[in-house]
Amino acid sequence: MNVNGKNYRTIWLNKEDDTIIGIIDQRYLPHQFVIEDLHSVNEVVNAIKDMHVRGAGLIGATAGYGMYLATIEACNKKNFDEHLNASAAALKASRPTAVNLEWAVNMQLKAIATGESTEEKINIAKDTATSIANDDTTYCKRIGEHGVKLIEQIAEKKKGEAVNILTHCNAGWLAFVDHGSATAPIYEAFERDIKIHVWVDETRPRNQGAGLTAWELMNHGVPHTIITDNAGGHLMQHGLVDIVITGADRVARNGDAANKIGTYLKALAACDNNIPFYVALPSSTFDWKINDGIKEICIEQRGDDEVKYITGWCDNEIKKVLITPLNSPASNYGFDVTPARLITGLITERGICKANEIDILKLFPENK
Amino acid sequence: MNVNGKNYRTIWLNKEDDTIIGIIDQRYLPHQFVIEDLHSVNEVVNAIKDMHVRGAGLIGATAGYGMYLATIEACNKKNFDEHLNASAAALKASRPTAVNLEWAVNMQLKAIATGESTEEKINIAKDTATSIANDDTTYCKRIGEHGVKLIEQIAEKKKGEAVNILTHCNAGWLAFVDHGSATAPIYEAFERDIKIHVWVDETRPRNQGAGLTAWELMNHGVPHTIITDNAGGHLMQHGLVDIVITGADRVARNGDAANKIGTYLKALAACDNNIPFYVALPSSTFDWKINDGIKEICIEQRGDDEVKYITGWCDNEIKKVLITPLNSPASNYGFDVTPARLITGLITERGICKANEIDILKLFPENK
Repeated sequence: MNVNGKNYRTIWLNKEDDTIIGIIDQRYLPHQFVIEDLHSVNEVVNAIKDMHVRGAGLIGATAGYGMYLATIEACNKKNFDEHLNASAAALKASRPTAVNLEWAVNMQLKAIATGESTEEKINIAKDTATSIANDDTTYCKRIGEHGVKLIEQIAEKKKGEAVNILTHCNAGWLAFVDHGSATAPIYEAFERDIKIHVWVDETRPRNQGAGLTAWELMNHGVPHTIITDNAGGHLMQHGLVDIVITGADRVARNGDAANKIGTYLKALAACDNNIPFYVALPSSTFDWKINDGIKEICIEQRGDDEVKYITGWCDNEIKKVLITPLNSPASNYGFDVTPARLITGLITERGICKANEIDILKLFPENK
Repeated sequence: MNVNGKNYRTIWLNKEDDTIIGIIDQRYLPHQFVIEDLHSVNEVVNAIKDMHVRGAGLIGATAGYGMYLATIEACNKKNFDEHLNASAAALKASRPTAVNLEWAVNMQLKAIATGESTEEKINIAKDTATSIANDDTTYCKRIGEHGVKLIEQIAEKKKGEAVNILTHCNAGWLAFVDHGSATAPIYEAFERDIKIHVWVDETRPRNQGAGLTAWELMNHGVPHTIITDNAGGHLMQHGLVDIVITGADRVARNGDAANKIGTYLKALAACDNNIPFYVALPSSTFDWKINDGIKEICIEQRGDDEVKYITGWCDNEIKKVLITPLNSPASNYGFDVTPARLITGLITERGICKANEIDILKLFPENK
């Protein structure tokens, strides 16, 4: 997508030297646009661990490229396989809960094993990394092509008035390689000249909406307005939201969707005001082993510092300010689960389905 | 209530010199506890205008004391009434939308007019100011005595486990003269040694929960945990909230309640999880002229800076940090309206009633 008028992905191979991986160091957004070059597996591990990159799709793609660097490093070592496996383990351990990370590393290990010479292994790893990134992009693009139909239908009824879309957190291109999940239908609508406006939930405590989604939309030229997480209910009550589209971190067989904390509240408000509420996800986000999302999906509790301190831009640098009494405790649940009954539909790369096991399996019969 | 082990109200007459009014300058909370002396009507006007004091009850009480200072200043002027009326006008204009402000100033004007000498007028103004403050305290205390019964009932069922109360924004003693509205049942329960724990919504964008309610509870020794506004739905879904009590800014005849933005979302979550949702208010908060809260209550839109910047404590001073892209627009609705159907009951100084016109008027028949 566009940044200062130039097209970017979140990760790429350096054009002059294809043993260097370029990423956007997202820790500085929205205040500074910093490009970082990664030269080694160690640097890739740190980039994932310290959240220079984040988001399921992008973490997977980064690990894929990390394994490509691992093959280059391994061919200088006595024991290629030993070094490769050590790199794989380090990458897998960099963010233990990210499913895509393990999946990408395992896919690389399997692919690399089919190569005979070290040179061939390096080429295979490079191709596999590229195809992981490209597949991520293709899936997101398809989510956009399916999801845009919902926006088109609303636009027809609104006859020239902008379609108001509310989204929560960052399920944008910064969380994937390109396009994003929840934002893919938005970017697709924008490409098709459909008049749209996006309400961006700031998404406390980490402000991924205010910091990342708003930054994406601003740079791509999509009309948008940042709101507090508290505001969505009022907007829906007064006809100012036409559709809600969020991403998901994990979706159960029954359609229950775990996503960033606060998503459930927006789904309740959408339901109370008869506004369609959609969850956009690549199929890798389904957890086929989980039958009941509310009962079975474990919700991560994160440090209370994320609630008590806020990071922002002040005096030309990033500063962290305390917003609570120093000694008051805070709690920080990272996600909540929106029950399937509140979800109008799931937008996947294979199409849109209702949020229930029967309809999900019609699109993904291989998981019956 | 207690601050560092000492009992405070939010406003008082100086013990050594009763022509000086003491207040807590709330702009520095929760980081610094600053007492301010107000010596003149001008200083009182500024304290209201620049939000050293805030909250309907406290603004009314402050204006009452301001009118007392006005009588002292007026007796040094050629034309007592002219000066008094000018002070009254300045006080009324200091926060144009606060109903209690106008009400307190008018009550003072009426009372002062009954005095014959200027000395008598000053004494009447002093007594009236004191009684406005005392009445505010008495009403809040009664709200506490009625509301605590709800907490007692839950405590009986929980047999020794803490009753978990969720509140939004600051309807605490800092918004009144003492006790608060939503917090009054909480403090009363604490006095009665009922085991309680309060979930404090941080309440973006101005963070009155994280900054003021948490500070109150911490200083008074009430167990509490600060949460993001996004978290309440998840907590309710998992049985971690027993009752929600919020304040209100304006309640219509039909029971619809305008309160800080985001209240409606918590009411939806409470309803979805069968958790009682109560609104606590002194009767001055009813707007008897409004029949339908959602249709008729105007919602103030405030500046976007409150969303884009956050104020906090850093390097031993209060700093303001930018948390969004500089050029992204933000919107800032200050309040939302919770429909009466989602409100289990209203806790008033005369007792608890259902949120509908018939039951409200049973408690307040003079407004039929």
